Formats: sequence, C-alpha cells, structure tokens
Amino acid sequence: MNAIRNVAIVGAGLVGQGWAIVFARAGMDVTVYDARENAEAVIGAQIDKAVGDLAAGGLCGDVSLVLSRIRFARSLSEAVSGCDYVQESAFERIDVKREVSLAIDAVLPAHAIVGSSTSGFPGSAFYEECGNRERLMVVHPVNPPHLVPLVEIVPTPWTAPQAASRVRRLMEDVGQSAVSLSREIPGFVLNRLQGALLDEAFALFAEGYATAEDIDRTVRDGLGLRWSFMGPFETIDLNAPKGLADYAERLGPMYAGFADQRRADRGWAPDAVTRADAERRELLAEQDLDARRSWRDEMLMRIVRAKQAVAD
Amino acid sequence: MNAIRNVAIVGAGLVGQGWAIVFARAGMDVTVYDARENAEAVIGAQIDKAVGDLAAGGLCGDVSLVLSRIRFARSLSEAVSGCDYVQESAFERIDVKREVSLAIDAVLPAHAIVGSSTSGFPGSAFYEECGNRERLMVVHPVNPPHLVPLVEIVPTPWTAPQAASRVRRLMEDVGQSAVSLSREIPGFVLNRLQGALLDEAFALFAEGYATAEDIDRTVRDGLGLRWSFMGPFETIDLNAPKGLADYAERLGPMYAGFADQRRADRGWAPDAVTRADAERRELLAEQDLDARRSWRDEMLMRIVRAKQAVAD
Repeated sequence: MNAIRNVAIVGAGLVGQGWAIVFARAGMDVTVYDARENAEAVIGAQIDKAVGDLAAGGLCGDVSLVLSRIRFARSLSEAVSGCDYVQESAFERIDVKREVSLAIDAVLPAHAIVGSSTSGFPGSAFYEECGNRERLMVVHPVNPPHLVPLVEIVPTPWTAPQAASRVRRLMEDVGQSAVSLSREIPGFVLNRLQGALLDEAFALFAEGYATAEDIDRTVRDGLGLRWSFMGPFETIDLNAPKGLADYAERLGPMYAGFADQRRADRGWAPDAVTRADAERRELLAEQDLDARRSWRDEMLMRIVRAKQAVAD
Repeated sequence: MNAIRNVAIVGAGLVGQGWAIVFARAGMDVTVYDARENAEAVIGAQIDKAVGDLAAGGLCGDVSLVLSRIRFARSLSEAVSGCDYVQESAFERIDVKREVSLAIDAVLPAHAIVGSSTSGFPGSAFYEECGNRERLMVVHPVNPPHLVPLVEIVPTPWTAPQAASRVRRLMEDVGQSAVSLSREIPGFVLNRLQGALLDEAFALFAEGYATAEDIDRTVRDGLGLRWSFMGPFETIDLNAPKGLADYAERLGPMYAGFADQRRADRGWAPDAVTRADAERRELLAEQDLDARRSWRDEMLMRIVRAKQAVAD
C-alpha cells in the first residue's frame, strides 16, 4: 500500500481550512476544493492569515513553505482523482453530506480513503449508497484542527478495520491525536463527555447553587488544569494510593450518590439557558465575542506549547 | 474588622501543608498544629521540599522568607488562640471532624473564622453543636492547594453571609480562585462536575466504544485544552456566532438526546472498573504511580505558568 502523500480537502470553511494547514504543515501536498464563488481568493487569504498566526504563536516554522504545499482545484473530480486521502468538510446538513459523499465516491482512486469531518451525523446516515463504503468513515476533528489535535475516527458498519487503522496512523503522522471508536454512537466520545459535564453544570446553575462564572471558574482553575494534560481515568488513577480500582472503591459510592440524584432531572432547562446567557453577556458583550475568540486561540497556543515542553 | 494576618492550620497532612504554603507565600504568619508524633520535624521537612519544588518550578520567590513565616504550635489551643482564620484539614472522618471542630470552637477568638478542608461532608454534619457556628463553613481546596488554585466556599445553614464573603476575599488575596456556593449539596460543584464526566467515561468504556486511554486522550488533547483556561459555559458561549443561548438553540437538542439515553444506566459498572484499572496498570505499573505523580505536578506548574503569562 502506498504511503499517503496527496490529500484532498473537499469543502473549505473554517474546519476544512484547518485541515489543509494540518496536512501541509506535516509536509503533504494538499488540494483544496470548495464550491463557493471566488473560493481560491477568499479561502486562500483566510489560510494565509491562520498560518501567519500559528507562526507568530511559535507553532509553525516556514510559513511560505507550508503555504506552497496548498493548491486549489476547480472541480471536485480534479481534487479527488489524484489523491490518497480525502478529508470531506462540507456543510453540516445530511442531504449535503450524502450528495458530496456520492460525488467523491464516484471519482475516488481505488486505493484512497475518505474521512468526513461531521460532528453530528454517523457515517452510516450518508455513506450507505457509496460503492467504496469499506473505505469511508467519520474523522471528526475539534475546531480548529490545527490548534486542537484531537481527532475521533468512527467506522460505519461497512468500514474495513484496516482502513480505520490506516487513518489512525495518518493522523498520528501529521501530529494529530487520534482516538478510535469501535462503532457508531451519537455524539461520538468527545461531545458525549462534554454533554455530561454541561448537563450537570446547567443543573447546578438552574438550582441556584452557583453563578455560571463560578461554575466556569471551578473547571478552569480546578478540574481543567489537570484535564489539559491527563484524562479523567489517569486523573483518578493518580489520586488514590494504589490507582484506579482503589479510587473507585474509596469514592465510587460517593459519585454514585450524585448520579442517583440527577437521573430524573437532566437536560438544559430553558430558563437556565436564558439566565446563563444573560450572565455571560454581562461579562462579555455580544460584539466582543470575536475578540475573546482570538484570546482563546492565543491561550490554546500557549497551553499546547506548555504541553509540548515536557516529554511524557 | 481587622485584616486577616495570622492563620492557623489544624491538621497538616498533604492538604494542610499545601495550605500553610499558600498563606505563607502570600505574606501571612502561619501557625501549624498537628497531633501526630514528631509533627514539627516530619511535616517541616515535607513543607521545605514542597516549597523548594515550587521555587524550582518558577512559582515561588524567596524560599527562606516563605518558610520563615511558618511555625509550629505544641497545642491546638496555642495555634488557634492568636489567629484570625483557621483552616482545619484534619483526617477525613466524620467523628474526627466533629471532635476537632468542637476543640477549635472552644478556643476561637471572637473575630476569627474557620474553614474546613473536607471534600466529603457538608459542614452541617459536624458544626451543629459549635457555639460560633455562624463563623464556621467548608473551604474545600483541590489537592495540592499551592498548585491548583480552586477553592469552594460552602456555607452551612448557620453561616453568616458576611463571614463567607470575608473568606472569599481572603482566598482572592492569597492568590486562590474562589467559588461561592449558595448552600450545601453533596460533592459541592467540583466533584459533581467530575462525577458527571466520569459517569459518561465509564459508560462509554463499559460498552466497549473506546479504550480508557483513548477516552483520556479525548479529554487531554481535546476538551481539556480549552477547559484549562475557560469553563464549560464560556466554551459554548464562544462556539456559536451569538453566544450561549444561540449555542443552546442549535445544539441543545443533540445534547438532550445523549442524556436521555443514559438516564437508566449511569454509575460505574464494577466490571468496567476492573478492566479500566487493568488497562491503566498496563500503561503504568503500580510502583511507577509516584513518579507519574511528580510528572503531574511538573505539568501543573507549566500549565499554571502558561495561564499566568496571558492577562485576561
């Protein structure tokens, strides 16, 4: 099997642009196709800026070399026909995903693999009619993929295990952090974990135990400090003398008590959403959201660099 | 009301030692009392080492100045009688908490406030018979408090709001990050949020969707990168064009779907605990847990410094 050298990006909004940077930064040749008017001018300028920001943040070396590896195709078929791997990042609507997947499938080289960036749909919802469906799967990034390395690889019932393993190696080769799901589940792993934490956060807020800002503080100055370099299992593994099973024996009953109390009343109460949004808008006006997003990306770069500085 | 200058630490295991460092580093005079044999020699040496590690990690200036502010008392009454604030960090057993609280209460100066480090008990379970119970509350740190700044302030039904506010200011003055609960709830905020995420992590693992290591990876290379400097509400607030309410409208139904599926089957399945522990022990032998805890503290210092480097 040939090594993956040529990557096609189909659909180049913010997610597709981030993917183009990930692959080009790792030395691959990237061909971008986006159906919108003036795609090359508009998207090219956005990619230029993002790569410049990365370099300023110390996370990318030679800007012009990276950019030189990204070119634009005038048709989907031109982008896909010469590639080894397709990262599909089309608009997140099931009919769009289905149509684009069939178009990719029709011109896919016999050895190539396709990953979809979808966060909301299982691959089985839009790959079923594709002829090459044993080489199609979901490869879900976090936004933006060039800053947050996590990628979820989710096979459909038809995906060949070797194809999923090959994508995992590809992701590791280009510096992403890959997780492999055994089968489909709504929300995959990442959004299910985020959802569980958000459910409890909204419940505590709805019941008036603490402000949204204090709940945020609990995560960013408490739990999240550890979780930025250790997951939940490693965290509890180090927090009891003999490790995880010891922790579960000591504290499992306490945690089970919290869960029992919540079984009947999970979900985000509409009134809580309204009040939490009002509290956020007091802290940050709607017109300042974009500036805060830039701050977030700056912080992400610093944390990523702090993590890189210590070998594990 | 006098400013808080003199702090008594009652019970000086790892948590009490961390508290002594927090207050001494901030310029306060700290008196430590611990009932164990040879308390001063053993505990003094442990504090010396921890402050040295902090300085090596760039998070503490003049080691000898900090250490010079910590002294040991030979009795609880000697420690408490001259202080403005008591941080009780006695052994985590309800009868011990009750006994120590009554002993502190009996010699507490008329203006002084007491915070208990308990993580597992509401203050109402051990403060009821204290004469000064309007000045007693739970002040729950994360371990170790000199590295992780988060502190939960939890009033009992008898705690005066002004006493709780005063402790919040004290915590902010000494560089901790304080959250104020309106009333008691099992697990407070931090462990409830951690428990919600762990429940989902154990469920995904028990059902075979991913390995424990891949679930950990999803947090440390995905969710946790953001959560180390933004909480869950700020994260979703920045992830929709118009903020939190906009995000809830777009994605709330998807998250509600995950929650529905879990209502019947939360909790940590015993078999999943056994298998997750086995997976952790393959990654890290039990005799290597201590070395990995040192690595964790090194990483915590780096992330704390990375956060400090950007003003928000």
